[in-house]
Amino acid sequence: MHRWVIGVDLGGTLIRAVRTDLGGEKVARSQLPTEAKSGGEAVMERVNTIIEEILREVELDEVLGIGIGAPGPIDADGRIYNPPNLPDWGDFSLTERIFDRFKRPAFAGNDANLAALGEHRFGAGQGVDDMVYMTISTGIGGGIISGGSLLLGARGYAAEVGHQTLVAGGPICGCGQPGHLEALASGPSIARNAKERLEAGTSSIISDYGEEITSKSIAEAARAGDKLAQELFAQAGFYIGLGLVNLIHILEPKRVLIGGGVSLAGDLLFEPIRETVDQQVMSPIYREVEILPAALGADVGLMGAVALVLSDRG
Amino acid sequence: MHRWVIGVDLGGTLIRAVRTDLGGEKVARSQLPTEAKSGGEAVMERVNTIIEEILREVELDEVLGIGIGAPGPIDADGRIYNPPNLPDWGDFSLTERIFDRFKRPAFAGNDANLAALGEHRFGAGQGVDDMVYMTISTGIGGGIISGGSLLLGARGYAAEVGHQTLVAGGPICGCGQPGHLEALASGPSIARNAKERLEAGTSSIISDYGEEITSKSIAEAARAGDKLAQELFAQAGFYIGLGLVNLIHILEPKRVLIGGGVSLAGDLLFEPIRETVDQQVMSPIYREVEILPAALGADVGLMGAVALVLSDRG
Repeated sequence: MHRWVIGVDLGGTLIRAVRTDLGGEKVARSQLPTEAKSGGEAVMERVNTIIEEILREVELDEVLGIGIGAPGPIDADGRIYNPPNLPDWGDFSLTERIFDRFKRPAFAGNDANLAALGEHRFGAGQGVDDMVYMTISTGIGGGIISGGSLLLGARGYAAEVGHQTLVAGGPICGCGQPGHLEALASGPSIARNAKERLEAGTSSIISDYGEEITSKSIAEAARAGDKLAQELFAQAGFYIGLGLVNLIHILEPKRVLIGGGVSLAGDLLFEPIRETVDQQVMSPIYREVEILPAALGADVGLMGAVALVLSDRG
Repeated sequence: MHRWVIGVDLGGTLIRAVRTDLGGEKVARSQLPTEAKSGGEAVMERVNTIIEEILREVELDEVLGIGIGAPGPIDADGRIYNPPNLPDWGDFSLTERIFDRFKRPAFAGNDANLAALGEHRFGAGQGVDDMVYMTISTGIGGGIISGGSLLLGARGYAAEVGHQTLVAGGPICGCGQPGHLEALASGPSIARNAKERLEAGTSSIISDYGEEITSKSIAEAARAGDKLAQELFAQAGFYIGLGLVNLIHILEPKRVLIGGGVSLAGDLLFEPIRETVDQQVMSPIYREVEILPAALGADVGLMGAVALVLSDRG
């Protein structure tokens, strides 16, 4: 009799795991540092260690399955392609390794896709068959639910929503291409814009809010009334809104959810986003889309991995 | 016993209809001028007239269903929202009107979506579960097949692939918004760019190829070696390629099909498109996408309407 689901979130810094019941209620959790530099084989060993730990008090045959989310493009067989925060990963299947070790059904997915799945099943996307989830932090990623299911593309590489050109010939993105949304509105992009404006002599109190300039310190300065900081968020929100307009025209979601660390800036970001969407859609029929904060916070990836097992998608 | 399918293509200039067997083989066709200016009710009457005509020699109960494609956003109930080439359309359901008249199952869809469905079932997209169809003519539209089905969005307004911002603040699109792909690479946009360059004094033989400058006359001049004409197609192909890169990152199709009048320029357009996709994707894994001409030509909408009936989507 199945009673438990295991969800694992393999990040560049932490490997986190959760055990839930079949309704997604968390009953145990655990984490380990990833030590990404030690390479794929060593990280894989730590993934198995943490799964072992979270399974300690249960019978293996009570486990419905094990889901794992990982950064970077990942195919249906659980092979990660050049994960950006996991150097020397190697060429092996996450799900095969987990199955070999625990003999339970294993499922893997891209972390941003799984986050969309998690919000859809357990968070702010419940009951919405067509939605887009966008996460804004170091990079900009996302996941797409279309007709109630994850839109994976031909091999599982879809939903790279941060890598759309908005400004042909614009600033270079982390992926090497010019003018992508990620290069215009990610956390590091907002911080880079702040530094450039400060170096150019714009007066601002941003530097009072932390030794290092980050989107978080800029948000604090903006809330304290700093004009430059407010302007920087308005600009980021404008580009995020433009990117959403593209996605709205292409996918026509009923709802858009925005998560990730930068989204914690709240109205500083959501107001210009909503205003831009309102002004830039091609027809009023697209204005009905709901733009809301994601609900699951830091656990979104874990809950997405749990949702993956429950929806039994490989 | 069902033997026939009726497909109707309601265009701004012509209403066309076809009768096929259940395998999509055409056995009869007919057409009438739309006379769009006469308004929605009069056009609807002509739609029914042509369906009547194409049904003349068959028994109504031998007809599996009637499919119709129409321009502009159209919802699941067959209501067209402000169709661009059908003024004074009014607010009624195409499918209801057809059902009321013929008492056979009726299905309606956006013409570009149906074109994608037609290519998927009968044309260059056969056997491909994840594909994007893009049509480049007066405007730029399209349809998306995801996981084997048409991606419709929440209300059927998805796949407006020509209305993605590529150049924030760029030239104004027919929809009124700046910098969309359609404003950079549609037939009229290419012609407008030609006129601007000619007025600015660029030497060219484009004007020798017809009284009016169109994408067709520019293509002829390009084939005759005209540098400006070649440059204009290279530029349009670059932007189409950029737009496809966005779609490839978002949807990860296995194949992209390009149709519409401007696509008849062939390699003049496909070469810069393929080169741009090759150079601008964020990772080599996206380079495997196949970019091919659509196969069904002017009948694509008709065959899409037939495919809609056969796939029984309302």
